[in-house]
Amino acid sequence: MSLTEHPPASLESRVLAIEDELAIRNLVARFADACNERDAAAFRTLWTADGVWEIGAPNQALVKGLEAIADLFDRLVVPWPMFMQLAHSGVIEFQGPDEAVARFAMRERGMGDNRYYENLAVYHDEFVRTPDGWRFKRRRYEYRYLDTSAFGGSLFPLTTGQ
Amino acid sequence: MSLTEHPPASLESRVLAIEDELAIRNLVARFADACNERDAAAFRTLWTADGVWEIGAPNQALVKGLEAIADLFDRLVVPWPMFMQLAHSGVIEFQGPDEAVARFAMRERGMGDNRYYENLAVYHDEFVRTPDGWRFKRRRYEYRYLDTSAFGGSLFPLTTGQ
Amino acid sequence: MSLTEHPPASLESRVLAIEDELAIRNLVARFADACNERDAAAFRTLWTADGVWEIGAPNQALVKGLEAIADLFDRLVVPWPMFMQLAHSGVIEFQGPDEAVARFAMRERGMGDNRYYENLAVYHDEFVRTPDGWRFKRRRYEYRYLDTSAFGGSLFPLTTGQ
Repeated sequence: MSLTEHPPASLESRVLAIEDELAIRNLVARFADACNERDAAAFRTLWTADGVWEIGAPNQALVKGLEAIADLFDRLVVPWPMFMQLAHSGVIEFQGPDEAVARFAMRERGMGDNRYYENLAVYHDEFVRTPDGWRFKRRRYEYRYLDTSAFGGSLFPLTTGQ
Repeated sequence: MSLTEHPPASLESRVLAIEDELAIRNLVARFADACNERDAAAFRTLWTADGVWEIGAPNQALVKGLEAIADLFDRLVVPWPMFMQLAHSGVIEFQGPDEAVARFAMRERGMGDNRYYENLAVYHDEFVRTPDGWRFKRRRYEYRYLDTSAFGGSLFPLTTGQ
Repeated sequence: MSLTEHPPASLESRVLAIEDELAIRNLVARFADACNERDAAAFRTLWTADGVWEIGAPNQALVKGLEAIADLFDRLVVPWPMFMQLAHSGVIEFQGPDEAVARFAMRERGMGDNRYYENLAVYHDEFVRTPDGWRFKRRRYEYRYLDTSAFGGSLFPLTTGQ
């Protein structure tokens, strides 16, 4: 449900509702970008200290807390010579002033070291407002499609900097 | 053309213009999400009572009104064991305070029951502001690419709830 | 870094920050749409007069200025019978009131005249606020994956108008 269809009374609160929505969309974008750039430091900043990151079947994993999340990122994402996470549109539902849930339509593709990875999935998200802004409290990756058979094409190494 | 490059005079009207843009982007996101979750009840809420949903060649269909739209959704989307609609960026043009048109870049992929479906398309949209918020007045799906040949990989059933 | 997590003092400046973010996202969306519609006139309006458009390896190109940018668009994009640029989420960082940089996750697919093109990439962007709104000062397309081998499926010609 879009907040903007039931605008709160004051202009101040309407602006805050917009900022909240954009901050959450930016958080999802920064997650994808941290994956695509293999940026572990940026990835850590997206979570609450006790955040939960869950990957569903058939690649089940469930870790809690920043250190475990960072470890999983180092194992799952960083090693790929080519890895792209593509975040599409998502629906956000606010559940009070400081909490929200969402679903985002996802695709990931990885290639390298004789491994191939192509999927379609939905990220089930829980967000919380912290003193430093909105953060992931929980993300659960639900595969809808997965193909690990070989495909063609060439990969190109990351360049550094803007 | 972005509204925000020609800001209206008052802060109130500038906030409303932002809310309108986000409401329309959320409507497109909710459409994709309703497809991905096979959520017929959510899908119905996105349209005006006399809305028109058109699918272009080679899968021509044109239905008008909520009942016909819901019927088409039940036939086209619900039966797929795996179906993902991926909404990418879109350009919105407002044509007065209560009407807008847009084009969104789309991809869909479906699999199951010996059927395969992969496409690239553009959604040509018309929106109208109703007392309950922005709704689709008309959507026309224009295929640019379609492949129905078999592909590999595994599908995973939907889980329920957040 | 999301601006909205460090809201400026005045409501006016907060609204401007939101408008700036949305204007930049709209600029990226209009770029993709101009490609998808082969709309050279729309494409020209997105750049500063001395804009730089760079395509990275293995399809290196670097052009500067509106005429050279328009020429490259006519050569690279217009000839494809089917071409779709899909812009996914992006992270924007403002570097003062009138400048910003960003990274956007991209995919392109082209087909026709015995040519095939499928890629994943990152657009590295620089934006500047002009009297007419935000414009691209520089875009650099960094391929991460490229496949030019043949694939199946059918293409459909563009229709005209909404």
